[in-house]
Amino acid sequence: MEQQAEQAIALLARTPAALDALLRDLPEAWTHRNEGENTWTAFDVIGHLIEAERTNWLVRAKIVLQSGETQPFEPFDRVGYMRESQRKSLGQLLDEFSALRNRNLDEVRGWNLRQEQLELRGRHPALGVVTMSQLLAAWATHDLTHLHQISRILAYQYREAVGPWKQYLGVLHCAGHGSA
Amino acid sequence: MEQQAEQAIALLARTPAALDALLRDLPEAWTHRNEGENTWTAFDVIGHLIEAERTNWLVRAKIVLQSGETQPFEPFDRVGYMRESQRKSLGQLLDEFSALRNRNLDEVRGWNLRQEQLELRGRHPALGVVTMSQLLAAWATHDLTHLHQISRILAYQYREAVGPWKQYLGVLHCAGHGSA
Repeated sequence: MEQQAEQAIALLARTPAALDALLRDLPEAWTHRNEGENTWTAFDVIGHLIEAERTNWLVRAKIVLQSGETQPFEPFDRVGYMRESQRKSLGQLLDEFSALRNRNLDEVRGWNLRQEQLELRGRHPALGVVTMSQLLAAWATHDLTHLHQISRILAYQYREAVGPWKQYLGVLHCAGHGSA
Repeated sequence: MEQQAEQAIALLARTPAALDALLRDLPEAWTHRNEGENTWTAFDVIGHLIEAERTNWLVRAKIVLQSGETQPFEPFDRVGYMRESQRKSLGQLLDEFSALRNRNLDEVRGWNLRQEQLELRGRHPALGVVTMSQLLAAWATHDLTHLHQISRILAYQYREAVGPWKQYLGVLHCAGHGSA
């Protein structure tokens, strides 16, 4: 496999354990609170990551491999799994995310991607032409976007509790950046 | 112990394992690159967290308990440990951070903090009067600030690789917020 793909997979493989270590059995005062109306809790974010494993990245990578630009990707339902996930515990969601991610990465590793495959093109419904290489990089950076978001959501719960320290704590001055 | 202190400790106890799961044995192309001149790598951030365990939060909490406002805190050297840490491996730093954090939290748990102690006051050299409760909350939020920063530093390495996906990936639009 090309080093570039291995590097993305190295990060993708670590995210479930990192989120598990951070969030499992953490009090709900941290995990089930959001940043205000129409924002997500850390619990919601894990539901979104599960949905992305089920219907977004791997599905699209397979379309790139099999059909290239001729078959545009389906739009991704960013909140699709959240309704279903509300009936589960955070521990269940973390288990589910980890299992799906492992299964998906096993499949990608099995493709043994070479430079030629990394240059294959697909068609994103809004972004236009994208490559397999960009898709793998975006999958990994999507994890980082949501780790960034979760650290901000958790910190938000302490925005008053830190008192005068607020000015030194950068995460409390992050208002988010578009989709997360 | 007051619930408020338990909640802060629940998060503080999880950070070393979360960073370990994310960063240990991750390729150096992720962990040893920064966001440009005079910025930190993920490796540097772990060195800073070690320094803060050694000389900042616990030391100051003890001053609040023992001397209150009469003894101002020493200023904290934000880059003090970085010089020393450059000779070590990331794995060694992660081990060291975990051991120091565990030892420090054991000490705090031993204080069995009640509401009365959480209201004790200390004097920060720049911020003025702060309480024990604010110190614990700031310690936890300092972890989140650096988790937020690490997710951003890692994502920065893929700012070009993601191609047109960049516009959807919030972390790539974060320029940092002051001290992190």
